[in-house]
Amino acid sequence: MKLYHLSETREFDEKKFKRFLIHDSPYFRVLNFNLAAGQLFPVHKHSADGQVSIQCIEGKGFFLGDEGAEIPAEAGDLLVSDINEPHGVRAAEDSDMRILVTIAPPF
Amino acid sequence: MKLYHLSETREFDEKKFKRFLIHDSPYFRVLNFNLAAGQLFPVHKHSADGQVSIQCIEGKGFFLGDEGAEIPAEAGDLLVSDINEPHGVRAAEDSDMRILVTIAPPF
Repeated sequence: MKLYHLSETREFDEKKFKRFLIHDSPYFRVLNFNLAAGQLFPVHKHSADGQVSIQCIEGKGFFLGDEGAEIPAEAGDLLVSDINEPHGVRAAEDSDMRILVTIAPPF
Repeated sequence: MKLYHLSETREFDEKKFKRFLIHDSPYFRVLNFNLAAGQLFPVHKHSADGQVSIQCIEGKGFFLGDEGAEIPAEAGDLLVSDINEPHGVRAAEDSDMRILVTIAPPF
């Protein structure tokens, strides 16, 4: 068993969003990204089988998808995307945004 | 892409904890359990390879383990356990507790 406290990675950087590796195993990888207001995690995709869940754990912003798709997101909202499907995140202009990302299987 | 709102499964039952299947795929399964104050998700294990992450998303309580282990948990705390390792959850006597559980691979 391993215990993690997301309160310990609650850091923001005005220059670029912060990335923290929380957990990694052969089964899944968990990351915490903290985006200051207005920061962008650009839309991207990877050539790998699997899925990624993107959970907004604090603040608000948008889940981003293909062709400019923007889905409003706030704490408690969860997006699941195939890893090879375009996905991204942007914090709202007036709110920081923290997300918890789970990737399975890791690639 | 699939979008889920954990605000939509924020239900408690004084008789037994509530269970909601949020997402299921060949890669991972996501469930939301809502425990009213004092309710117990008994310690258990499954004979399967893989890991389970148990994230407290609201309220407080305890992550439970082998031999009576009790780890205080509040929103933002995350426990990762092997599926075949004993794990459980109990809400505090004075607080409801919501958890998000991710199992990979599903079994």
